[in-house]
Order: sequence, then C-alpha cells, then structure tokens
Amino acid sequence: MAIRVLITGGTFDKEYDELTGKLFFRDTHLHEMLKLGRCRLDLVVKRLMMIDSLDMNDVDRGLILADCHAAPERQIVITHGTDTMVETAQVLALGLRGKTVVLTGAMVPWAFGSSDGLFNLGSALSFVQALPAGVYLAMNGRCFPWDNVRKNRELGVFEPLHTER
Amino acid sequence: MAIRVLITGGTFDKEYDELTGKLFFRDTHLHEMLKLGRCRLDLVVKRLMMIDSLDMNDVDRGLILADCHAAPERQIVITHGTDTMVETAQVLALGLRGKTVVLTGAMVPWAFGSSDGLFNLGSALSFVQALPAGVYLAMNGRCFPWDNVRKNRELGVFEPLHTER
Amino acid sequence: MAIRVLITGGTFDKEYDELTGKLFFRDTHLHEMLKLGRCRLDLVVKRLMMIDSLDMNDVDRGLILADCHAAPERQIVITHGTDTMVETAQVLALGLRGKTVVLTGAMVPWAFGSSDGLFNLGSALSFVQALPAGVYLAMNGRCFPWDNVRKNRELGVFEPLHTER
Amino acid sequence: MAIRVLITGGTFDKEYDELTGKLFFRDTHLHEMLKLGRCRLDLVVKRLMMIDSLDMNDVDRGLILADCHAAPERQIVITHGTDTMVETAQVLALGLRGKTVVLTGAMVPWAFGSSDGLFNLGSALSFVQALPAGVYLAMNGRCFPWDNVRKNRELGVFEPLHTER
Repeated sequence: MAIRVLITGGTFDKEYDELTGKLFFRDTHLHEMLKLGRCRLDLVVKRLMMIDSLDMNDVDRGLILADCHAAPERQIVITHGTDTMVETAQVLALGLRGKTVVLTGAMVPWAFGSSDGLFNLGSALSFVQALPAGVYLAMNGRCFPWDNVRKNRELGVFEPLHTER
Repeated sequence: MAIRVLITGGTFDKEYDELTGKLFFRDTHLHEMLKLGRCRLDLVVKRLMMIDSLDMNDVDRGLILADCHAAPERQIVITHGTDTMVETAQVLALGLRGKTVVLTGAMVPWAFGSSDGLFNLGSALSFVQALPAGVYLAMNGRCFPWDNVRKNRELGVFEPLHTER
Repeated sequence: MAIRVLITGGTFDKEYDELTGKLFFRDTHLHEMLKLGRCRLDLVVKRLMMIDSLDMNDVDRGLILADCHAAPERQIVITHGTDTMVETAQVLALGLRGKTVVLTGAMVPWAFGSSDGLFNLGSALSFVQALPAGVYLAMNGRCFPWDNVRKNRELGVFEPLHTER
Repeated sequence: MAIRVLITGGTFDKEYDELTGKLFFRDTHLHEMLKLGRCRLDLVVKRLMMIDSLDMNDVDRGLILADCHAAPERQIVITHGTDTMVETAQVLALGLRGKTVVLTGAMVPWAFGSSDGLFNLGSALSFVQALPAGVYLAMNGRCFPWDNVRKNRELGVFEPLHTER
C-alpha cells in the first residue's frame, strides 16, 4: 500500500526572494527531492498548507490530524517546521490509532544547496516503512517517539528528554 | 550501541579528475555527507577499500564479511557500488548471523551535485536501526531482503525478483 | 600589477543561520569562489566591511573611497550590495582619478547554491582588466558607466538610464 | 548589436550517464548557466557541434571559422574543450579579420556542481565586449592573445608562452 506524504511547509520549503531579500514560501520542493533521490516508493503526496511552524495554530493541527484520520494509507510522513514539530506530534499521538506517522523537517532550506532535508527525507520514508504504529520524529538520522523528544534550540538538534541506558 | 559504517567505494565516492577528464577515487565523502545531514548517530566509520564494485572479487568480499564478523556492532551499513551489491549481500547473508546489515550506494557520484547518495544514506542508516537481523539493500527509498532483489540495468533502479501481493 | 578586490558585504556574502532562520553575515565567500573559478589572477583581497548596502552610510562610503585612493593598485573590483551600489559608484566617480573601478554584487547569496555571484565575479574581474580608468557597475553580464545605470527593483536587474541608439 | 555564442562541446557540457557510469554529451547547459547568471545581454546562441576537443579535426575547425565569418555579429564567444582550444584559436586568428573572438571552457563539467564554467562564461562575455578585434582565450580569470598562450597540462591551467615584464 502507498505511503502518504503530507506537506505543511517549514524550513524544508523556504526560498530566497531575490527582489526583497527575504525568505518566503512558493511551492514545495518535495517532488524534485524525490526525483533526485531516485525514490521509487508508491507515494500519495498532498500539500496541506505552506507555513512556518511558528505560525501553526490549533486549527492547522486539527487539519493535519483530520487528514491523517481520513487517509486510507497506514504509513504517513509529514514535512514540518522544526520549531513546533513536537507539539504537532503530540496532537497526532493523542488523536490517532493504528497508523505509523513520522514527522521530519530541515534545519536549512533545500533551495540553499546544503540542506539536511534530503537526508531526513530518506530517513523518514524508511522509518515509516519499518516501525510499528505510533507517532515519531525523524531528525539527525535518529527516530524519536513523540513523547521523548525535544528540539535543543541552542544546538539546533533534536534529542531525547530522558535517556534510558 | 554504535552503528558501524563500512566504506568500500562505488559511485558514491567517485570524483572527476580535472587533469585527465576521468573519474577516480580519492577519498570518501561520507564524513561531509553526514555533516550536511546533521547526523547525530553514534557511528564507527571504517574505510575498508575504495573500489568500483565491478572490480570487487572474492577476496574483497571475504574482507567485508570478516570485518562484519569481527565488529562489535550489531548494526552495519555498507556503502558499495551498485553493480555487484547483490553479490556481496549474498556472501554476507550466507556467512553472518545475528546482525542487521544494510548495503547502499548511489547512481550518481556525490561530488557531482545531484546525487541520490544523501537520500540513500539517510535511508540505510534508518532501516538498519529499525529492522531485525538480516542482510538488506536500501536503494530508491525501498529496502529489499538480500534474496529478493536485482539491479535493473536498463532503468538504473533496484526491484524485487518476485512480488508477493 | 595586481588587481585589488575590496569586500563590503552585500547579498554576495549572506548566509542562513540555521538556529534563528535568519540571514546574516559571517565571513566572505570570495576566496572559495575564486578557487572554484580556478582564478589565477594576481589579487590583493581586502575585507573592508561586511554589511547590507541598505545600511551603508556616508562614513562607510568615505572609507571605501579612501581605500581606493590609498591603494597602489590601479584596477579595483568592489563587491557590494545591489541596493545602493549606484550611490557608492557616484561617490567614487567624483573622488577618484586614474583608476579603473568595477563594482559588482549578487541577487542571490552565494551560499544558496544558485547564485549569480560567480558569473558576476568573473565578469567584473574581466572588465576591470580591459576598461580604461573610470567607475563602472558589472551586473547581468553588462558593464555600465557609473552615471548611466539604475537598479530596476521590480525586475531585480540593472539597466541604463538612457539608451543611446 | 548582439554577441554570438558558439557552442562546440568540451568539458563545459559533459554529463554523467548513471546507467553506464561514463561521461557523455546530451545537450548544452549554456542556457541554464546564463539564466543562473541573470545574464541580460542580447545573445545569439548557436550549437555548432557537441564534441570533446580531443576529437576535433580540421573539418570541425573549418566549420567554426566559416560560422564566425558568416555571422553578422562582430563579437563572438566560443565554448570549447580546453585540450585543443589553442589550436582552434590559431585557425580563427589566421582566417578572421575585424571581429573580437573569445574562446572559453571549463576544467570541470558544469553538471558536476563545482564548475569553473560559470566564472569563465562571465569572464568571456565581458572580455568580448571590451577588447578590440582579435582572437583571445579567457580562462582562469585571465585573457590571453591567441599567439601567447598554452595549456599547462600538469597544473590544469592556462599560461602565457612568454612574459613580457
């Protein structure tokens, strides 16, 4: 069965506006990234919104949850801004059953050449195929359950809340 | 516990020699790729050889198998040329027990800008963490068991020998 | 005799701060651009300031003029933000005699992969060698005398004030 | 009046064939390079041939000379492989009068990301506008008259035959 890919925006898809010198959203880069990665998975890609995750509110998260609910696919990857990725994961974890959802994003815009986005996309699409139902974050090559992860804003990386070893 | 990454060469690491106009191996690009991917996994990286997989012989495969055997790590990613990746996977599958080994590679050299290598590296490092013991190939976003995969040389993609659905 | 290259900042050298998601200046990319371009000119590179040209004031322009004056080189390339490049050119034109000065810049930061900066740098370094004394802007493959150029902010390109044909 | 750009192939336009692992020619990258450089010159671009300059023979050079002759434009840039660029320049110099011709090329294919091609293209298009009639090579940021230049194959750079200072 296909994997669903939900696009919500985030650093992943930011671009540089050469007229204003500001960053903005135009369209998703997901399709070119998948092409570059020679990805041959059966994917259903849906662009749900195109926003900075700092601007994401409860209504937006409700939309994401509703889409995951209604989707026939049982494996879902969500591209998302890193700043509130954990909050969205919590909403999904409390509202969803029986699906594997992996959120991922990027610290550097794909359009800026040196992005971690392609690495993370490969990672998220792999974890979603291999993990049991649940909500996860895939960043930095690692996969975190939704209830044991935080973004370390000083270092710009994700880490567990508590280490169990 | 750490993940072992074995480097054997392949298209992944090919470079362009501007004096001769030919492709050649100099050094691995794995470290810069991991840096670009903001990878924060605990990795033990070992450069075992640096060859085109068409030039890989039984002795080379014996070296790879021996290294996997001797390694304390139970999760191993191997970067490898795509042309004989399946052959090496078979050797490892028949000779190893109790370890998860994922082979991956690239169709386009990393140094050439438009590589699938970063995508595949993110994918392989994720599958190796999530899958049970066994030998797999991670290419094109997919993960194949060693005994159900072939390289389709006309299309330049990997596919299962038989589909079971 | 050597060509002097004065660095003042501008879009040329902007980078993406992955912790804040904002654009900022860290260091110049000129040296790596010259290396990438296999440039073999005898250059004297000086980083005079590192600012957005919208923030450039009369004192800054005085510094640039003074440096051009004092420099032993008679051919000078200045990397500069595009927004006030014309204003700086006017200051230099009124204050300098007997030197060829070419200002250039970029519409997209070099660090963002798809920059016009390398093209413009090759252009500016060439015009400065071939043109007689005077102050010019090199952008979009064209070279404009300081008193017949403006930035078209709607299109993001430079154009003559009046065309003489 | 427009500048003519003649495309003959060379490293400039080489690509990587991911099915065979070999370098080959498909189509020119000149148009995307000009777009990336935000070039706004009035150009007439003609693809004359698409070959490695080591494979270029007297007939090919005759074609290039004939095209330069017949062209209405008086300023001509030729993209060319570096190995025999000097030979072609000699043929043009002996057969042409009253036109400014600048040959340029690249040491690394444009498609491989780290090309000197964009830098050289900006350089050649600038020298051709500023120099008097004659045949020149623009490489490494420098411009050489056709009769005082050689490719140093050990270093991969162009240099004068004799220095006059």
